[in-house]
Amino acid sequence: MVIVKEVGERRVIEAIRQELIFPRAPIPFGDDVSGVEIERNKVAVLKTDMLVGKTDIPHGMSFWQAGRKAVVMNVSDFAAKGVKPLAVLVSLGVPPSFLEKDVVQLARGLNVGAREYGAYILGGDTGEASDLVISCSLFGLGERRLIPLRSDARAGDVVAVTGFFGKSAAGLKLLSRGISASKSFSKVFLDAVLLPKARLKEGLALAKAKVVSGSIDSSDGLAWSLYEIAKASHVGFFIDNLPVAPEVSQFAKRNQLDPLELALYGGEEYELVLTIKPRFWKKALRIVNQVGGSLLRIGEVTEKTDMVLRWNGKTVAIEPKGWEHFKSRA
Amino acid sequence: MVIVKEVGERRVIEAIRQELIFPRAPIPFGDDVSGVEIERNKVAVLKTDMLVGKTDIPHGMSFWQAGRKAVVMNVSDFAAKGVKPLAVLVSLGVPPSFLEKDVVQLARGLNVGAREYGAYILGGDTGEASDLVISCSLFGLGERRLIPLRSDARAGDVVAVTGFFGKSAAGLKLLSRGISASKSFSKVFLDAVLLPKARLKEGLALAKAKVVSGSIDSSDGLAWSLYEIAKASHVGFFIDNLPVAPEVSQFAKRNQLDPLELALYGGEEYELVLTIKPRFWKKALRIVNQVGGSLLRIGEVTEKTDMVLRWNGKTVAIEPKGWEHFKSRA
Repeated sequence: MVIVKEVGERRVIEAIRQELIFPRAPIPFGDDVSGVEIERNKVAVLKTDMLVGKTDIPHGMSFWQAGRKAVVMNVSDFAAKGVKPLAVLVSLGVPPSFLEKDVVQLARGLNVGAREYGAYILGGDTGEASDLVISCSLFGLGERRLIPLRSDARAGDVVAVTGFFGKSAAGLKLLSRGISASKSFSKVFLDAVLLPKARLKEGLALAKAKVVSGSIDSSDGLAWSLYEIAKASHVGFFIDNLPVAPEVSQFAKRNQLDPLELALYGGEEYELVLTIKPRFWKKALRIVNQVGGSLLRIGEVTEKTDMVLRWNGKTVAIEPKGWEHFKSRA
Repeated sequence: MVIVKEVGERRVIEAIRQELIFPRAPIPFGDDVSGVEIERNKVAVLKTDMLVGKTDIPHGMSFWQAGRKAVVMNVSDFAAKGVKPLAVLVSLGVPPSFLEKDVVQLARGLNVGAREYGAYILGGDTGEASDLVISCSLFGLGERRLIPLRSDARAGDVVAVTGFFGKSAAGLKLLSRGISASKSFSKVFLDAVLLPKARLKEGLALAKAKVVSGSIDSSDGLAWSLYEIAKASHVGFFIDNLPVAPEVSQFAKRNQLDPLELALYGGEEYELVLTIKPRFWKKALRIVNQVGGSLLRIGEVTEKTDMVLRWNGKTVAIEPKGWEHFKSRA
């Protein structure tokens, strides 16, 4: 008898996938979002992702923050596909002993998360559950030819990200392990965990300009995101400029933590991981700067399907690990 | 400190509603489904509803049946609005001690539930939760002018339903209370609980013909559904032909149960509750017969906002009660 805890989330998803019959769809199963073609080149874009109190809401996160995050983590997937979210539906499972005022805070957070990115909460469902469960479903409209998939990265493409990594992992350490940091560092790390931002304006601008070949959000960690693109595109990566946040480097040094571990495998970060044809690189940089974002070149897509990191003059293998439900523990 | 168990699901939903900012939307908040206008008269129709192991999956229901039901209960809302579901997304919360083979059964049920009604499971999310949680989100396309709301019932309209009531309530009694019934009755009652059917072909045909003024599905019970239409349309009901299933009448008699209780307040039934202008009644009957369904006239919409039942020569008030999370217990 095999229990799900032993096999982990990804095998569970694969087991489920094998039971499903799929139609011809404009976006392949397993990409950040799903799509339904509604007319020539026009795609209804759908996404659902669930936040569960026990595993996904760290100690120290308020109900307002949890509600907001439940929306933002879904918006992040839309950002990776360059699609504007229009509507959000929410399934809310609430333990019966919950305070009504906490549900109100949660609803405020949901509303703010949607409004921050131009979407509205249109409806949903509420019921009783042992854990707090917040399942958000997003809807938007996209043009098929403008949606970057995970499967179109090609050897020679530049690999880029929209921000530095490791801050959320450091923040989770502050919350769960009692490790401390300076006031300004604490704020940076805790904001990354408690008030994540989706890179929607960056994703929308890049997709519209058609300068991105492959794209994914980094919610399961940078390493895992690279592996997902590698698997879908049949390529490898050579990373020579790992985007460890400067604050994370210092924090790791002082607390004898591995900065690679924090930046590569932490998860709960909502940057975009992108591959871009070299001839579009300057244009991509300009476009992201114009919307007030940043784009960091971190390496190159390779034909060889290895996952290699150059770090302090040494060559290190990037491991296929990241946040995985049933297996990971913060 | 007010806890949600004390106030019940409907007040929790109202508290949430007050925190949300709504756009101009083609379908009002609180109707069976939500809508986003995507072009003139074309509406993206969205619905999410969650099944939670502890409260919504009766003892005796298999995982295959639970997965199927999680889809069907959402399809039922689409049926009430006359919209064909195209795609389903699933957020699955699974206790870590669950068997992988049970998840596989669940996935099979999800797939069957979608395929039965012409839809496909396109994607979703899996995570760890204390309860089994199955949150399905449906997407479809509708024409605004063809979608019957809860708010357009008018005095003088015929009230009709697509089938008899009380079978699910009787089935739940068989499963939870150890009350027994004849083999053929047991099958009828258990099928109603374990293998519910959504009245999609009836709903689609009626909406297309524009013969329905008000419409809702009866998942929270017949009484509650009537109250919802009454509230949204500012009308009342005079019910003179309560559609108690003949099997339920006999079962109630033998077990000294109240047939009204079973038929009015049971919930977990997926018939459509409809209001129809008298001049369209014959056409409505013909249309539903053509698709192999049935339509039972149960009463009339009244200007007076009372809720009155004629039963065995007596006048009885229908109470505003039905299935309510946090409060109801099977």
